[in-house]
Amino acid sequence: MSSADAFATDSPVLATARRAREAAAVLAPVPRSAKDAALLAVADALEARTAEITAANAEDVARAREAGTADSVVDRLTLTPERIAAIASDVRDVVGLPDPVGEVVRGYTLPNGLDVRQVRVPLGVVGIIYEARPNVTVDAAALCLKSGNAVLLRGSSSAYRSNTKLVEVVRDAVAAAGLPADSVQLVPGESRDSVKELMRARGLVDVLIPRGGASLIRTVVEESTVPVIETGTGNCHVYVDAQADLRMAVEILLNSKAQRVSVCNSAETLLVHRDIADAFLPLALDALAGAGVTVHGDAAVAEAARLHGGPAVVVAATDQDWETEYLSHDIAAAVVDSLEDAVAHIRRWSSGHTEVIVTSSQPAARRFTQLVDSTTVAVNASTRFTDGGQFGFGAEIGISTQKLHARGPMGLPELTSTKYILTGDGHIRG
Amino acid sequence: MSSADAFATDSPVLATARRAREAAAVLAPVPRSAKDAALLAVADALEARTAEITAANAEDVARAREAGTADSVVDRLTLTPERIAAIASDVRDVVGLPDPVGEVVRGYTLPNGLDVRQVRVPLGVVGIIYEARPNVTVDAAALCLKSGNAVLLRGSSSAYRSNTKLVEVVRDAVAAAGLPADSVQLVPGESRDSVKELMRARGLVDVLIPRGGASLIRTVVEESTVPVIETGTGNCHVYVDAQADLRMAVEILLNSKAQRVSVCNSAETLLVHRDIADAFLPLALDALAGAGVTVHGDAAVAEAARLHGGPAVVVAATDQDWETEYLSHDIAAAVVDSLEDAVAHIRRWSSGHTEVIVTSSQPAARRFTQLVDSTTVAVNASTRFTDGGQFGFGAEIGISTQKLHARGPMGLPELTSTKYILTGDGHIRG
Repeated sequence: MSSADAFATDSPVLATARRAREAAAVLAPVPRSAKDAALLAVADALEARTAEITAANAEDVARAREAGTADSVVDRLTLTPERIAAIASDVRDVVGLPDPVGEVVRGYTLPNGLDVRQVRVPLGVVGIIYEARPNVTVDAAALCLKSGNAVLLRGSSSAYRSNTKLVEVVRDAVAAAGLPADSVQLVPGESRDSVKELMRARGLVDVLIPRGGASLIRTVVEESTVPVIETGTGNCHVYVDAQADLRMAVEILLNSKAQRVSVCNSAETLLVHRDIADAFLPLALDALAGAGVTVHGDAAVAEAARLHGGPAVVVAATDQDWETEYLSHDIAAAVVDSLEDAVAHIRRWSSGHTEVIVTSSQPAARRFTQLVDSTTVAVNASTRFTDGGQFGFGAEIGISTQKLHARGPMGLPELTSTKYILTGDGHIRG
Repeated sequence: MSSADAFATDSPVLATARRAREAAAVLAPVPRSAKDAALLAVADALEARTAEITAANAEDVARAREAGTADSVVDRLTLTPERIAAIASDVRDVVGLPDPVGEVVRGYTLPNGLDVRQVRVPLGVVGIIYEARPNVTVDAAALCLKSGNAVLLRGSSSAYRSNTKLVEVVRDAVAAAGLPADSVQLVPGESRDSVKELMRARGLVDVLIPRGGASLIRTVVEESTVPVIETGTGNCHVYVDAQADLRMAVEILLNSKAQRVSVCNSAETLLVHRDIADAFLPLALDALAGAGVTVHGDAAVAEAARLHGGPAVVVAATDQDWETEYLSHDIAAAVVDSLEDAVAHIRRWSSGHTEVIVTSSQPAARRFTQLVDSTTVAVNASTRFTDGGQFGFGAEIGISTQKLHARGPMGLPELTSTKYILTGDGHIRG
């Protein structure tokens, strides 16, 4: 790519992307030891410069308060010395993870004696577009650095001062450790235009990973000419089959819906097989009521609630409910006539994130896992396990809900591509 | 996805994509035996209905001739009984390949006892946009069927009658074998509009694979909201290092450039280390001249040609030459001062397809393969080996030159995604 001579006419965003590209070329062959040393320096620097970081963060927090931002959002924005120590600790955890770069994915010798090796290499330049939480700034930088990628960070403008300081601290530490400071850069500008430019920087940016609200993700997916990894939205289903341990089903339902309602792997819809509905729904309704969950039920669920009485709050469900990711103490609920009907409902309404079947029938478990095509299909387990940490990845850059490149929780290997290395001794094609 | 009720208002292209989606859901869990039986039926049908196919093809050929199409293009368009038999034989080869669907890519048990399995699944609906050759129609259909994907085929309008008949034959055989006929569909319409619609069918089509000229690929990459796998353009380099076996270097250069000039894995640029230029260039120039190759050389190459004399045709190279994929009996050539300069030239001008180093130095080979980031980097072997067949994949749907999802030659596994299957016995998150 013709680069150097283009600097002059570049916009600030494109110039940043071009510097990232140069840094990525330097970073790609760097061995693990040097990358780990830089990460340890970053962790130490975060702790040593905590006062600077909290000072910058205080400005963002003050502006957010003036703007009348909701307390929950302000809380997510706030950095305390304890939270900064936790972020540093997360960075040290990344040091302990294996380096995916250089892993031989496939290797064999062809009949003609030519050696073929498919080897993991960094993607190159990774762009992350995210909202609120400043901790993502450091997490993403650490994971990209470990996997040999240069990263372009585009956080929320509400965290601009915090992110600017955090990136300054990270860059200083990376440079002091002898790696290119431009391995980690904040995308300049607080306006939406900088996001638009990033989405058009094809050839300079290898992949964009939007993390945050559904509208942000939709915009990036629709408008980006840079390849995108779609993350996040989760309209997850719990299906209770005709043969199921009722107590297990109630526990999995409660954990899936209510253990934490604001996350993408929480359950949003309950589907119950008709043969077990009369026995299960009263237990489920009481349990959900006990957790303060409002049920948006179809006619059969409403009727069961009426017959059962009890504290359950049940409102009539519409098509809107089947497709909604509530992220709140609400759940849609329907009775289905068969496993196939449950699968059909999921195929029509699910976002393809995580679906669960609770069953004691082996054929039913096998059929459900074969027919449901979501990033994660679970048998007799909570939806909440779809998570890089839970999967044992040690870290997570996001949860991909698309089929290309990476699907489900993404760890370090998902931040790599591969190349083929052929070794011969004068091999030519006949 | 809300589908059925939308049929009414759909355009022909979207209706086709929706039928493909339904077929893909049926096809996904079909076992290998049923898919192989369908493929054998397709191969038999192609041979049994050869007369129909050649008749339809004759119409396309006649129109192409009337339009004054170049003989080489008409030849690629033409189907003879022999060529149809060869296509049928290729389909039978696909029967012999392992089914990627169901392969467990990763599998382990978490400390809490939860079983995790990452399993290969079909991508779903694959759209292929290609030019001229009708054999691609059957090849692509066979590979997608084997990998459990429904395929939407959008061939060149110049082959529309041939493709229509071929797809009819394939669909009849697939249906007779008990699989959905809509697993294989031709995108209706000969105009460019049908391509545009296909590129906007996000949510219905899981991936688009453009195969053909650079302009077609660029258009799809730029305009598609459906994820795209970029294929093909190859500005491949042969670098002859300071320490190299000169005879080997000449043979690899000749094979890379001239064994077949019209393909993406042929060499387009020669880079020679200054220390070996005086010894190597005379041999190289004579060999290239003997193969009828015109050399577009920098000043050093031109001077070497002048001093050497001989039959070599050398014209002055411009920046245009460094970035051109000639696909003809032409090659750009430059002398570089070091391996690092060769790498810098490749980084700036290469399309990232295949680069070769000819060297007898182990450190040089290691450094070149570390620093060059292309789909394939070869040591002492011809660029022409970057090919699914040569790699032993048994088949190839194209050569990806992008970093996401698949890179390099794509076989059956590259036509799959994965999903995670979790199995527990009432596991919930604490």
